[in-house]
Amino acid sequence: MRELGDLVVDLSTRGDRATAVYRALLDAVRGGRLEPGERLPPTRALAVDLGVSRTTVATAYERLVAEGFLTARVGAGTFVADAARPVRPPRRGTDLAPRPGWDRGPHVTSGTTPKPAHDFRVGIPDARLFPFDTWRRLVTAELRVGAHDLGVYADPAGHLPLREAIARQLALSRGVTATPDEVLVTHGTQQALDLVARVLLAPGDVVAMEEPGYPLARDLFASYGAKVVPVRVDLEGLVVDDLPTSTRLVFTTPSHQFPTGPPLSLDRRHALLDFASRHRCAVVEDDYDSEFRFTERPLETLHSMDDAGRVLYLGTFSKSLVPGLRFGYLVAPEPLQAALRAALQLSVGYIDVPEQAALARFIADGLFARHLRKAKAAYAERRELVLEAVHGPLSRHLELMPCQAGLHVTTVLRDQAVDDAAVVQRAAALGIVVETLSQYAVSGGPKGIVMGYGATDPASIRPGLARLAALLDETSSTPAPPPR
Amino acid sequence: MRELGDLVVDLSTRGDRATAVYRALLDAVRGGRLEPGERLPPTRALAVDLGVSRTTVATAYERLVAEGFLTARVGAGTFVADAARPVRPPRRGTDLAPRPGWDRGPHVTSGTTPKPAHDFRVGIPDARLFPFDTWRRLVTAELRVGAHDLGVYADPAGHLPLREAIARQLALSRGVTATPDEVLVTHGTQQALDLVARVLLAPGDVVAMEEPGYPLARDLFASYGAKVVPVRVDLEGLVVDDLPTSTRLVFTTPSHQFPTGPPLSLDRRHALLDFASRHRCAVVEDDYDSEFRFTERPLETLHSMDDAGRVLYLGTFSKSLVPGLRFGYLVAPEPLQAALRAALQLSVGYIDVPEQAALARFIADGLFARHLRKAKAAYAERRELVLEAVHGPLSRHLELMPCQAGLHVTTVLRDQAVDDAAVVQRAAALGIVVETLSQYAVSGGPKGIVMGYGATDPASIRPGLARLAALLDETSSTPAPPPR
Repeated sequence: MRELGDLVVDLSTRGDRATAVYRALLDAVRGGRLEPGERLPPTRALAVDLGVSRTTVATAYERLVAEGFLTARVGAGTFVADAARPVRPPRRGTDLAPRPGWDRGPHVTSGTTPKPAHDFRVGIPDARLFPFDTWRRLVTAELRVGAHDLGVYADPAGHLPLREAIARQLALSRGVTATPDEVLVTHGTQQALDLVARVLLAPGDVVAMEEPGYPLARDLFASYGAKVVPVRVDLEGLVVDDLPTSTRLVFTTPSHQFPTGPPLSLDRRHALLDFASRHRCAVVEDDYDSEFRFTERPLETLHSMDDAGRVLYLGTFSKSLVPGLRFGYLVAPEPLQAALRAALQLSVGYIDVPEQAALARFIADGLFARHLRKAKAAYAERRELVLEAVHGPLSRHLELMPCQAGLHVTTVLRDQAVDDAAVVQRAAALGIVVETLSQYAVSGGPKGIVMGYGATDPASIRPGLARLAALLDETSSTPAPPPR
Repeated sequence: MRELGDLVVDLSTRGDRATAVYRALLDAVRGGRLEPGERLPPTRALAVDLGVSRTTVATAYERLVAEGFLTARVGAGTFVADAARPVRPPRRGTDLAPRPGWDRGPHVTSGTTPKPAHDFRVGIPDARLFPFDTWRRLVTAELRVGAHDLGVYADPAGHLPLREAIARQLALSRGVTATPDEVLVTHGTQQALDLVARVLLAPGDVVAMEEPGYPLARDLFASYGAKVVPVRVDLEGLVVDDLPTSTRLVFTTPSHQFPTGPPLSLDRRHALLDFASRHRCAVVEDDYDSEFRFTERPLETLHSMDDAGRVLYLGTFSKSLVPGLRFGYLVAPEPLQAALRAALQLSVGYIDVPEQAALARFIADGLFARHLRKAKAAYAERRELVLEAVHGPLSRHLELMPCQAGLHVTTVLRDQAVDDAAVVQRAAALGIVVETLSQYAVSGGPKGIVMGYGATDPASIRPGLARLAALLDETSSTPAPPPR
């Protein structure tokens, strides 16, 4: 009988021991270390070897027999099945190539990097504020009552009670008036944009993007062959006068321009709707982060000022709940809904019903409003600490952009000769993760530092930003290289 | 004090009574029945009116005050806030229009129609076979351990343990050898196709589709501006010789052609790979339903025969688990992964991590294999009952197409002058829901009846199909209208 000395069984992992033994044996078979026809040790002997019970080994053997990897011959023992071929080494090559525009990977996401000591990453809420126990209870309840619904293919429009809850919530918090039939549930902002692009844009269409602006929106429109035109922003938001007259779609963040911060002024709002009406173009209003507003009276949404059905309004629960619960919504005029739903059906089928039902209850029962109040208070405190540093030690180097909402503040470097990317890199080496403003602009400017405070430990803010200020002191005292 | 006689409080719904009172009051405010400045009845009076406790009313008032709909004035009472404007009637119109190709709604889905008495709908598994209690336990556990991960944006490639589990499962059940890095987790077949189309197809590219074939795949490719060419199938599957030489991508269902049933023959498989190699085109292998195979030895997958990295292999858990758990996967060569992940990030961000983690455990712990064994036994029994009827009373009218896997059987009408759509409609009126074969072909032919047995109550099969046979007897005895 062959020694199974190379059988490595990891008994420290989750799951039961029989599964661990099963996996080790399967790996041995598929890795070619146990060959077809080879006899396995009796269960008793292997059990002693591994220090597990005989039943554990027998359970693993039985599963492998059931799956066809082993065969049991009465009176002779257990053997590796003839059909249990070892795994081929994977093929790496292909001469298929992505079409132009897709020759790059995804943007790096927050989940793939460790949390820094001084966490000023942009657009990440604090998951510790989220009532996970409540959420788990709601999901568990819906998995129980929703069992039957999981057997069929659901309506791509989204779960009606959730659409109702969103419509009600938007009316309440943002003055957006929409019937549930004008609401489409999506997996987040990005999917809402994707559906809009799919249904409204033809290759070559001009899309106007705020500059600086949201890179994933820009990339998405470009991926559909749209001609993406950057349009500058100032302290009143998007400079509407600069919109090309051929614009088919405007992407804008009127509540607080992303990433610079100022809201679109009332004059500009009227001008934008007027432009849309004259040129028959669509306006996509991304009302991101607007749940977290630190002044009393927000401006009305573009959507509520629009009488012509040209504004498509979108929002996300990624910040107001947690990014992991992939939910957003698109409010669009009813005549576009059939096409949008068809597009959603073609691209992802529909959205997980029990989670939609759980979210509907979360909103309808007032738990969402309660969570928002709690989260807003926490973010207000962090925001104050960041602003204190920006007005204090950082003020020598950074000028604050006005901003009354959201989970980050944006600053512009007083000395535009300083390389914001170099500052961010040096800060990161000290465990202080902030972001450059320049990354958001196609032109690479203006340069500045963006500081998120959603996921930041309040105690880490003051020391972190003091060190950032010291670092900027050093940077600015270093003579700039002579111009070439 | 105004009588609140028109305040309708629905105390029968789920959720607590304070919420019901809150909603009724909110509706009254937003509906304009309670006007800004109006005084509300004292809590005690309203409590008596509604037959609820005073605390219940006070809780509802407090929430509305906190949300800014009501204001409390000390010593004077509670009033509708001045800022609580009634909701505007929704706008219905827009002059935005979907671009050509999107002037239609989504296909009707199974979740939007009631379950028929004799349920032969295609592509629906039996949710009653799925171990919901186990699933709920796994999801609940992952929502606990995964709480932290929900605070950040996850890797669009998918949760690594799930990619590992899928790679292992595919090796085990389908002989598909793939590293976890070649596996991309998707929301189902449709999203896998969407990502492939996005990354590989330019407008005008020729896509070859089996005819009859899968309508949602056809629609998807067409929505990207591809030129979709139907290529006929016969008893050996796709007729490879008919592929246009300009083909950039072939969509095929080699395990059992959808919807007709026969597997792609070995000769055709070689011919297809040869064609792909000569014309440098991609082959998308949709291995739908292959978990439910009723013969011993399936043919190898195209993917395992492909040495050039031209085959993209996709599968779904919609049938092997339940459609409600939106999971599928795409196995694609590593050089394409960066682009595919970028496309997934742009279109939906990423996929819910706790559910991915739950599915990973479900597979890794052998629960998936156990569920498949149980489900397969149930489907085999239903399949036998359907085949008995097809070989029995239905055989006068219907010819069975060979098929060894999946959740449906396909038949062709012996008399092609019979209108399958009319038969299906008349059957539906009797509570017998079967599908036409003709709907799957662009050309509208051949005519036949497709019978799913996934969600069918076994006891309903024999009587349902006997009535269908009787109905076909009637139809064929009716003289056909004279040719025009």
